[in-house]
Amino acid sequence: MRVTVSRRAHFNAAHRLYRPHWSPEKNEAIFGKCNNPHFHGHNYELIVSVTGEVDPETGYVVDVKILKDYIKSEVEDAFDHKNLNLEVPEFKAKNPTAENIAIVIYNKLKLVLDPHLDLEVTLYETPRNFVSYSGK
Amino acid sequence: MRVTVSRRAHFNAAHRLYRPHWSPEKNEAIFGKCNNPHFHGHNYELIVSVTGEVDPETGYVVDVKILKDYIKSEVEDAFDHKNLNLEVPEFKAKNPTAENIAIVIYNKLKLVLDPHLDLEVTLYETPRNFVSYSGK
Amino acid sequence: MRVTVSRRAHFNAAHRLYRPHWSPEKNEAIFGKCNNPHFHGHNYELIVSVTGEVDPETGYVVDVKILKDYIKSEVEDAFDHKNLNLEVPEFKAKNPTAENIAIVIYNKLKLVLDPHLDLEVTLYETPRNFVSYSGK
Amino acid sequence: MRVTVSRRAHFNAAHRLYRPHWSPEKNEAIFGKCNNPHFHGHNYELIVSVTGEVDPETGYVVDVKILKDYIKSEVEDAFDHKNLNLEVPEFKAKNPTAENIAIVIYNKLKLVLDPHLDLEVTLYETPRNFVSYSGK
Amino acid sequence: MRVTVSRRAHFNAAHRLYRPHWSPEKNEAIFGKCNNPHFHGHNYELIVSVTGEVDPETGYVVDVKILKDYIKSEVEDAFDHKNLNLEVPEFKAKNPTAENIAIVIYNKLKLVLDPHLDLEVTLYETPRNFVSYSGK
Amino acid sequence: MRVTVSRRAHFNAAHRLYRPHWSPEKNEAIFGKCNNPHFHGHNYELIVSVTGEVDPETGYVVDVKILKDYIKSEVEDAFDHKNLNLEVPEFKAKNPTAENIAIVIYNKLKLVLDPHLDLEVTLYETPRNFVSYSGK
Repeated sequence: MRVTVSRRAHFNAAHRLYRPHWSPEKNEAIFGKCNNPHFHGHNYELIVSVTGEVDPETGYVVDVKILKDYIKSEVEDAFDHKNLNLEVPEFKAKNPTAENIAIVIYNKLKLVLDPHLDLEVTLYETPRNFVSYSGK
Repeated sequence: MRVTVSRRAHFNAAHRLYRPHWSPEKNEAIFGKCNNPHFHGHNYELIVSVTGEVDPETGYVVDVKILKDYIKSEVEDAFDHKNLNLEVPEFKAKNPTAENIAIVIYNKLKLVLDPHLDLEVTLYETPRNFVSYSGK
Repeated sequence: MRVTVSRRAHFNAAHRLYRPHWSPEKNEAIFGKCNNPHFHGHNYELIVSVTGEVDPETGYVVDVKILKDYIKSEVEDAFDHKNLNLEVPEFKAKNPTAENIAIVIYNKLKLVLDPHLDLEVTLYETPRNFVSYSGK
Repeated sequence: MRVTVSRRAHFNAAHRLYRPHWSPEKNEAIFGKCNNPHFHGHNYELIVSVTGEVDPETGYVVDVKILKDYIKSEVEDAFDHKNLNLEVPEFKAKNPTAENIAIVIYNKLKLVLDPHLDLEVTLYETPRNFVSYSGK
Repeated sequence: MRVTVSRRAHFNAAHRLYRPHWSPEKNEAIFGKCNNPHFHGHNYELIVSVTGEVDPETGYVVDVKILKDYIKSEVEDAFDHKNLNLEVPEFKAKNPTAENIAIVIYNKLKLVLDPHLDLEVTLYETPRNFVSYSGK
Repeated sequence: MRVTVSRRAHFNAAHRLYRPHWSPEKNEAIFGKCNNPHFHGHNYELIVSVTGEVDPETGYVVDVKILKDYIKSEVEDAFDHKNLNLEVPEFKAKNPTAENIAIVIYNKLKLVLDPHLDLEVTLYETPRNFVSYSGK
């Protein structure tokens, strides 16, 4: 019996979307307001979902306290109240779009979670825009 | 790397559920209060989800501004503040249940979106009742 | 010790905003899309708040089950799945704006509630538009 | 055309996580605050999702009123305002974790629903912790 | 310039409503399902609102981190994952209704907050039932 | 009959809390993570509430479309996707705390709204932290 267990978390960060080798005009045309060189920011809401067998003894797929600790060490401590472009190494060369942030979070959590667990990451950039990634 | 990008939108509309070739008694038995001939209405909340490859340059699966524009032209302009039975051609013969509205929205968006993108439509008729359709 | 006790409820209805003695042009100019003669509709979310002394024995200001029953008989049974303009007597001559619906609900509940209780009604026409009335 | 129809419901209950054949120390180490022998409780939010063909006549996959009645008889009447450990037979020997509660709800609803319908159960133990089970 | 600053928090607890000197029949008649002797429980959502002058230097009415710490020490540590009737001294003789829990929280926070700040406590017992108390 | 009409809006922005004439140590001690010199950001949710008499003809206190336009011109165009410290003149010398942002929004809207309307501004910096200001 495989069950999916999900945990919500959140972090606040500043970012800017742009490509350094593009002209300002092209950056403005593609990224619009998100290209503001002084940055803007979001309250990112994160849902981390892991799928696996239910332990017949504990009734847990995973201890949510342990999942919460991984989210804290891998995501919140790394991203919260940070400028993603300037302070988070993964986005030195990569555009911090919601898509790329979700992929980075997936990759960081995949490294620390039990490899038998399937993982999906859903990231809300705003209440109206969100993305999901499950390593496919 | 395939990521799903979702955008929320909403529209308000009136509707009524009934089958014109059924007796009033059968319509009442099957559709209950939703059969009120004077119509009732809802705030429909819509989530449009598209799945595709992340562009390695922009970091986008799709530009959400373009997705938002398609939702406006195909769904909001067509349905918002309308009587679905009387003013929306797709429901002249088809019952405007949440299921059928979701299928109509899916079909309209599928025509204008890049064919490489997978599409799923989730429609909340109320905060407690919602449906999803992905063309399967 | 005066405490405010609030209960949420909801109803779905169709309506139209217009003044019968105005020209179609003036109705269109003032009410825009809300003037659609074929009606549109909403999921109305309602919060009924009553303020009074806490009974030292029960620890209740009011039994929420009784408050829930009053909301059902006075509001839900009267408005749910109805066309407010055509089927609710209070709006035969009065425009069913959120403001007027809140005042009508206040007046109906005020008649049945213990007169020692203060009353406030908050009505969400959409998640983004809402009104409050407390009889002042 | 297969559509998924979802219905939200909720119930309040008390529970405790522990294994009777473990030492108090092990129960405390594994279940922490959830092991409190005096119980604690939750407002469980439930989403029941059924997937099937849309009836070409009614436009329904399932009549939501019937789905709502099954949720009431199988889940709400059995669990609401109950102590899951002491009063719900399914948890006499099984730990009432969110995972196990979702599996029990799935199994109860599967027995009464049309066998052509696929079923998924999502259970929120808190707004931040939730699980999903679809019989796989 | 007086501004109100609000902070959300939450705790999970079990409780039961009853009066020990009433007959079982009267307890059942007045408290219904809430009288279950085996307890039931809730996810309580709490909003603590303090009103005061904005400090012209910091731009703060109160440092939210300090407010958060008071909520943790006075409310969460005392109530979270507890049985309110059996484990929280304030409810040994007092019925743990939402009204009384809000008053107890108000009184505990009032003792530790700067006396120049006005205080209001809003407590959600469920998403549909909530109460507010501001010491009046 | 005075009714309060509320409208929700939102904007995303970057900011930083600090006092330029304080030492880095004092800024760090008082503002913690919010003092990050590279900025962080939020999705600010705004509720603008105006109170006034209901027009007996239209049934409106205020036309919500006009209120929405004022919020767009005075708040969204000025703050959305901006760095509050660097790009919004009101925060050149004033710390962009939630309290101060709410006061600035109140003052801007007060200048353009009908002076007979009472105004209250509620600003969510995160779903858990919010402030209200009504000019008192």
